[in-house]
Formats: sequence, structure tokens, C-alpha cells
Amino acid sequence: MAENKVTLARLAAHVAGRLEGPDHTEIAGIAELQLAGPAELSFLINEHHLEAAKTTKAAAVLISDSLAPVSLPMVWVSDVPEAINLALELFAKPLKPTPGIHPSALIAPDATLGTDVAIGPCVVVEDGTTVGDGSVIQAGCYLGRDCLVGQQCCFAPGVIVADRSQIGNRVVLGQNVVIGSEGFGYRCRDGQQCHVPHLGAVRIGDDVEIGAGTCVDRAKFGFTVIGRGTKIDNLVTIAHNVRLGEYCLIAAQTGIAGSAVVGDRVVFGGQVGVRDNITVADGVVAAARTAIHHDLPPGAIVFGVPALERRQALREQAVLRRLPHWPARIKKLEQRLTDLESAADHCQRD
Amino acid sequence: MAENKVTLARLAAHVAGRLEGPDHTEIAGIAELQLAGPAELSFLINEHHLEAAKTTKAAAVLISDSLAPVSLPMVWVSDVPEAINLALELFAKPLKPTPGIHPSALIAPDATLGTDVAIGPCVVVEDGTTVGDGSVIQAGCYLGRDCLVGQQCCFAPGVIVADRSQIGNRVVLGQNVVIGSEGFGYRCRDGQQCHVPHLGAVRIGDDVEIGAGTCVDRAKFGFTVIGRGTKIDNLVTIAHNVRLGEYCLIAAQTGIAGSAVVGDRVVFGGQVGVRDNITVADGVVAAARTAIHHDLPPGAIVFGVPALERRQALREQAVLRRLPHWPARIKKLEQRLTDLESAADHCQRD
Amino acid sequence: MAENKVTLARLAAHVAGRLEGPDHTEIAGIAELQLAGPAELSFLINEHHLEAAKTTKAAAVLISDSLAPVSLPMVWVSDVPEAINLALELFAKPLKPTPGIHPSALIAPDATLGTDVAIGPCVVVEDGTTVGDGSVIQAGCYLGRDCLVGQQCCFAPGVIVADRSQIGNRVVLGQNVVIGSEGFGYRCRDGQQCHVPHLGAVRIGDDVEIGAGTCVDRAKFGFTVIGRGTKIDNLVTIAHNVRLGEYCLIAAQTGIAGSAVVGDRVVFGGQVGVRDNITVADGVVAAARTAIHHDLPPGAIVFGVPALERRQALREQAVLRRLPHWPARIKKLEQRLTDLESAADHCQRD
Repeated sequence: MAENKVTLARLAAHVAGRLEGPDHTEIAGIAELQLAGPAELSFLINEHHLEAAKTTKAAAVLISDSLAPVSLPMVWVSDVPEAINLALELFAKPLKPTPGIHPSALIAPDATLGTDVAIGPCVVVEDGTTVGDGSVIQAGCYLGRDCLVGQQCCFAPGVIVADRSQIGNRVVLGQNVVIGSEGFGYRCRDGQQCHVPHLGAVRIGDDVEIGAGTCVDRAKFGFTVIGRGTKIDNLVTIAHNVRLGEYCLIAAQTGIAGSAVVGDRVVFGGQVGVRDNITVADGVVAAARTAIHHDLPPGAIVFGVPALERRQALREQAVLRRLPHWPARIKKLEQRLTDLESAADHCQRD
Repeated sequence: MAENKVTLARLAAHVAGRLEGPDHTEIAGIAELQLAGPAELSFLINEHHLEAAKTTKAAAVLISDSLAPVSLPMVWVSDVPEAINLALELFAKPLKPTPGIHPSALIAPDATLGTDVAIGPCVVVEDGTTVGDGSVIQAGCYLGRDCLVGQQCCFAPGVIVADRSQIGNRVVLGQNVVIGSEGFGYRCRDGQQCHVPHLGAVRIGDDVEIGAGTCVDRAKFGFTVIGRGTKIDNLVTIAHNVRLGEYCLIAAQTGIAGSAVVGDRVVFGGQVGVRDNITVADGVVAAARTAIHHDLPPGAIVFGVPALERRQALREQAVLRRLPHWPARIKKLEQRLTDLESAADHCQRD
Repeated sequence: MAENKVTLARLAAHVAGRLEGPDHTEIAGIAELQLAGPAELSFLINEHHLEAAKTTKAAAVLISDSLAPVSLPMVWVSDVPEAINLALELFAKPLKPTPGIHPSALIAPDATLGTDVAIGPCVVVEDGTTVGDGSVIQAGCYLGRDCLVGQQCCFAPGVIVADRSQIGNRVVLGQNVVIGSEGFGYRCRDGQQCHVPHLGAVRIGDDVEIGAGTCVDRAKFGFTVIGRGTKIDNLVTIAHNVRLGEYCLIAAQTGIAGSAVVGDRVVFGGQVGVRDNITVADGVVAAARTAIHHDLPPGAIVFGVPALERRQALREQAVLRRLPHWPARIKKLEQRLTDLESAADHCQRD
């Protein structure tokens, strides 16, 4: 990415902030106060930033409504982190490669490339595969046979797409993503594990984005499905025949086992695990490191191993923290009881 | 994979089912009832499938012995999922690439290729390496120096095999598998971590299958060993000098630390961790997410962090679930005791 | 790696051991007693090794001070595993490739290569990128635009370095490492997740080593930073804007979430997770599988989910192990109390 130059006036409008400073100053890029150069924007979120603001070289700052003014051009906003995200959208100028096929790429005679497709060096596209208009396939990617790749997709270097994969429009695949890897399905025959042939494939909806090193296995038959708009982080593994819904957010190193069904708008923190053949309903939120062993109802908010409803998990954890004090407490109870019993014994004998 | 056409009679024989329908109908492929086309097989596992069976276009169905007949050609079986696996074996027709070396591949003059070897585009094979008869090395694979690759192996695109690796026959490596990565072994010298040179290599037995993105580190000296017939899923890491036994099943995202010894026929669920320098005996089964910190005896069935024997873990978990009710219970005990004590005190004073 | 030949005298001096045997015997390599050949070194750590020592073919052994002598040339040392590490340093002879650019490599006209750089087959180096003197870029690596790669670096096959990455001197990257992958940062707009452009990059200090398949995301703005001398294992993911300190050891499959700050000389076991936006101070040690949800003070030694101070975690775990015996104990207390209460009741009525 390179960075666009933007006037302060345009910036303020885009982040819905109030500009106190010169309209026409041009800025490009954003940096912390100590690091910002004279053409860059910086930001003040809380009082901790006030000291550095005195010596920053930044051209202007995004500043929280809750702070006192500083002696720099300011764009006042209520939510500085959100304003930073918006500013980044303005500055971003994706390096769109010139369409064309690098001479080192190997495009099978029976492959079909749309208009304005950019194919990088050492890319291989096998027979029967179609790449839609405007898609960018970067260096070293491998597209197997009979794949469908939609329009305006962007595959980072090293992506591997196995035969018969179906990939929607505007799909972004990170470095070394694997689509259509062999499913991990075996059956025992004469005491040995025999691989069950996986004749299915993978189907990925529009606007899906997948992080570096993530693997999506193909189905035994039919499709492993990733729904439209779902975003997946790095080093996730999605097993054969999983159906992952639309507009989900799946953080890094999560694993979803075979034939699990995950609904729409589900959010998983990092390192979550989902057991095979279960159903996680729409809108479920699972904290990082949750292990989901059972079906979960719509909207459940869970964490723990196994996944518990959030309130229950918090209660258990609170009790657990106090647990080391209990043995003494119970021992004392037992002692008091023994004392009472012997007293009562006396009493009765009296 | 493409799909073979198979007659219903042959299908029924192969899945050991009883055919009720025309012998000679040809089918290719399997699909769910709603999705099956007129040349495909579908299946009925339970009553939930009865409704969809009325409108399916499938040519025939695998149907559970426990169900009432439907008005379609049927193959009766006792275990439908197992019959599906068997049917997939019939339908599977692996796309065996034509033997030969792609012109873009770089084969060192001192490498040795067996007969009927297929080498894909952009593959690199370094000096001193041998690839056995009938093996398939797909696009972009890299085989270092002095490696031995057996017969009938299949390496998916992007596999990287480091120098001196020894790989048996019929070994299947998934996309981006790394064999022989540097071991993570350091020693502290003058307060800094110095890498210990790893002069060893990796030895992989016959019929091993390894999933996409998995890494197997080479040994400090000697070999990191993966025994014959062992199957490993995606994104697993196996550290230097691990000895993993024969016919194991290791699910995704598991990590096995340095010099751990894992016996034969061991089964690990996903995201398991094994500590360095411990021994997991033959036949151990560890549920997903288990952390194995200590040696485990033969046949142990464990889960949890740290790994506990299954029955103990279940008992602890059951108690844990009731734990939030205990503080009130103990408090009540204490109150009753206090009441009694003051009554007793009264009594004695009386 | 090949192996150097070394005399026993030089070996003894290097490992600071006492030689009992011929000075000039040459050895190359190290192996277990049963496997060692007549030109190899072996070792005796404890009495379990005494039996195998009787039949070994090894030329000499490293032997622990605590053992009785054997009838082989011996190098006495106090710490055998450490002596093995030192011996490996002597034997190691890295296969340094001849400098030069493989004819299949694609070096952009505007890229700058230092002296004695070795570029392997199918490597791509884009415009504006500099590779320092003596660095080795192995087969199939991809270096994006405007990257800085220092001197004496070694990138294993399949490494992908995204645009604008800054990499120090003597950095070692394992197979399929990804530097500068897209950050996983979204903001919700009209109910859909919109990717926040990540205009930043990655900066990696001198002497960093990173294991196979690990991914380091680039920053939203500024840099994701990995400090000098830090060593990272396989399949780790480091999110956007993380600042990881100097001389850390990060074991396999660990994940560090966005904008987390990790201090110097921190040690993480395998499969650790660190939450976003928290601070882990210098010298923290987290056991394998720890989930760090909160800031940790300098030197804290933690484990568990969530991370607890080691002593507390051990205490909780010990209590937890006894927990299944408690319900019976509490039930008995309640019974005794009931008995006493009814006795007291009697007593009062009497």
C-alpha cells in the first residue's frame, strides 16, 4: 500500500470530526506522537498523550472530546480509535498491479481469464479453471483444475487452491492459504487406518477474507462451505464438510472439526476449538480458547473448556479462585462439630 | 478426483448391502437428498430424511435397516455412514498425472528419478536426492539435497522437504507441509540464546499421511521419526527428535515437543499438546485440547489440562459444575453450628 | 549441514571436558550408543547407558562425572546434554551455497543485492528491495517491494516477505514463514465487517530466528516489532502492532493478539495465547498452554487459563484434585449436624 495525500478538511469530514486548524494542510499517513513526521497525522486518546504532544512533529492530531486543547491543528472526535480506522481508509492506496500475465506464469490452454486480471510470476493455473474480471493472483499461487474464482479477488503470494474449488467475488486470501486440502477422514480396516476418498470440494462466498497459513479442507462429497462476508484470521483449520455461516469473525489458530455447522454472525476469539458434527447457532460469541463440545443455542455467549454460558463460567471461576481457602474452613467445621458432639455426649451421660 | 460410474449391483456388493432395485442402473457420486442429481446416490440415515426422500432426484439411496422402505431404488445397510465411506472408495478416480517432468521443473543433474515419476511445474529437486517409482511431486514442491523419497508417494503443491530427509513408500504430504525444519533448540551463552546446530534429519515410515501446513522438525542428531501408517492432520507441529509410533491418528493443530516419545496406535484429538522429553505409551487416547505433561501408561484414556485419566477428569468436572452452590451450603453449615454452639453454651450454663 | 571432522583433543577442549584416550582420533558426528558408527561420538548420561556402552561401536563417549569409567576413550564432563550441544557446534558445517543468482530467479531491475548474496531457484525480489551482503535467499522465496533485508540472513525455501518489511542482520526465517501478512482488523459498518486498511509494516531486529509456518502481521500504521535476539518456533501467529521484546523465546503454536506489548527476555511455552492490547512485562515466564488475559508484572511466572501466578495455580490445582472427595465430606458434616440438632432438640425438650 502507498498513502494518499488528504487535506485536513477532507479528513475531518471523513471521520465526522470538528477541525480546529487550517483546512488545506495536506497530510499522508498516521503515526504515534513520538514518531510522526511533519506531513503526518497523530492522535491523543487520553492524558498519557499530553506530554508527547508538546514535542511531536505531527502536522495535526485526532484528539478526544474529553481532553483539553493542545497547540496543534486538531480534529476533535468522540472515539479516537474509530477515527484512526476511518483515517486509514482515506490514506490507503492499494498498489493495484498492472493487469497482465507475468511471462513466468503457466496458464493452461483450457483456463479462462477475465478482463483486467493480473497474474504474478511463477503462478500456475490448471485446465478448466476460470478467474473473474479484475482479480489479482500474486506470485507463486497455484490454482488447480476446474476451479471458479470470482471477480475482484486478491490472492497473496503462495496461495494454493485445489481442484474444483468455487470462490466468490472480492475474496481475499492471505499468504500460503490452502483451499481444498485433503480431509482428515479415515476408517479402520483390518486394524489399519484407510483414508476415505474426499470427492467433494470447497465453496467460498463473496467478500470472504482468509488470513495467512489457514487451511480449508474439501468435503467428502458436496462442499465445505464458508458463507458470504465471513472473515478468518491466520493459521485456522476448517475440516471437511464444515458449514460456516455468513458474516462470521474467526480469530487466529481456531480449529473447526469435521461436519460442524456454524451459524451466521458468529464470533470466535483465538485458539477456539469446535468439535465435529455439532451445531453452533447464529450469533454465538465464544471467547478465546473456548472448546465447544456441544450444540450451542442462538446468541449464546460462552467461554471455557468445555464451553459454558458466560455467567456460569464466571461464577465457577470466582469460586475456583477462593477454593484454596476451603479445606481449612471445612476442617474447622469438622473440629467444631467434634467438639460439640463430645460435649453433647458428656451432656447426655451427665 | 473425478468419479467412476458404478452399477447399483456393484455398489451393493461393495458396501455389503441388499439391493432392492435395478441391477444395471449406473451412478457416479453421492450427495444429500436435496442436492443429488439423477445420476447420483443419496442416503437415509434416520426419520429426518424421510421427507426429503419424497422429492429427491437421486437415482438410488443407501438406507438404514431401521427405516421403512421408500419409493426409490434402495441399498439396505446397517451402518449408513460406513456405507457412504465405502461407496466413496468406488466412486474415487484419482487424477493420476501423466508421468514426466514439467519443463519448468529444475532437477539437479545428480538427482535420481524412478520410473513413472510425475514432476509438476516449478518443482526443484536438489543434488543427491532420489524419488521412487510412480511418485507424484506436484507444482512448486522443493526437495533438498540427499533426500530419499519412496515409491508411489504423492506430494501436494508447495511441499518443502529439507536436506537428508528419508521418506517411505506411499507417503502422502498435504499442501505446504514442511519436513525437516530447523529444531527449536537453544542454549544460553552470555545471556543470549544461541541456536544449537541440528545435524539430524527426519525419517517417515511407509503409508504415512500428513495434512496441509504441518511441520516436522529435524533432529539434533539422528532422526525425528514418524512411524509407518501414522496419519497427521493440518497445522500440527512435531519437534526435533520426537519419536512418533506406528498407526497413530493425530488431529489438527496438535503440538508435540522435543524428544517426546509417542507409542503405536495412539490417538490425539485436535489441539493436543505433549510436553518435551516425556513418554506416551502405546494405545493412549487423548481427547481434543488435552495437555500431556507426564508419562502416560499403555492404553490410558485421558483429557484435560493437565491430562487426567478420563474417569477422574469427568468426576472433577461434574463436581466443578456444582461448585457454585457450595459456598451457600458451607455457610449454612457454619450458621447451624454457631446456633448449636450457642445453644450448647446455654445448656452448659443452665 | 555436513559434518566436520574433529580430533578428540579439540573436542575435549571445546566442551571443557577431561579426555581419557588418544588425542588424535578423529570423529565426525554424534549418535546414541546403539547407533553410533566407528567414527562417531556417543554419550553416557546415567547408569541406564552402561549396558549399551559395552557393545557400542562409537569412537569415544562423553561421560558424566557421576559414572564409573568404561572401556572406551572418554571425555569426562559434568553436564552431558550441554556437552552434546557444544559438540554439535563443532561438528556443524553449514552448507553455504555458492553466492550468485539462480537463472530462474526474478530480480526486479530496481532491487539491490549486496555482495556474496545467494539467490535460489524461483525466487522473486520486487522493486525497491535491498538484500544485504552474504544473505542467502533459498528456493521459492518471495520478497515484496521496498523491503530491507540485512546482512548474513538466511531464508529457508518458501519464505514470503510482504512490502516494506524491515529485517535486521543475521535473521533466520524457516520454511513458509510469512512476514507482513494482512492484519485481522475490522470495523462494523451497516452490520457488515469492513477491513481496516493496514498501512504499516513489520520490523525485525538482528539475530531473530523464526520457525516454519509462523506468520507476523503488519501494523495498521507504524510497525509490528520483533526485538533483537528473539527466537520464535513453528506455527506461531503475531498480530498487527504487537511489540515483542528482545531475547524472548516463544514456543510453537503460540498466538499473540493485536497491539499486545511483550517485554524483553520473556519465555512462552507452546500454545500460549496473549490477549490484545495488554502488556506482559520483562522476564515473564508462561508455561505451555497459558492464556494471558491481563497485564503481567516483571518476572511473573504463570500458568493456567486465565494465567495465574505459579504458586496460586499449583495450590488451586492441588485442591481441585481433591475436590471429588468433598461432597461426601460435606454431606457427612450435614448429617452429623442434623443428628446433633435433633439431639439438642430432645435435650431441650427433656
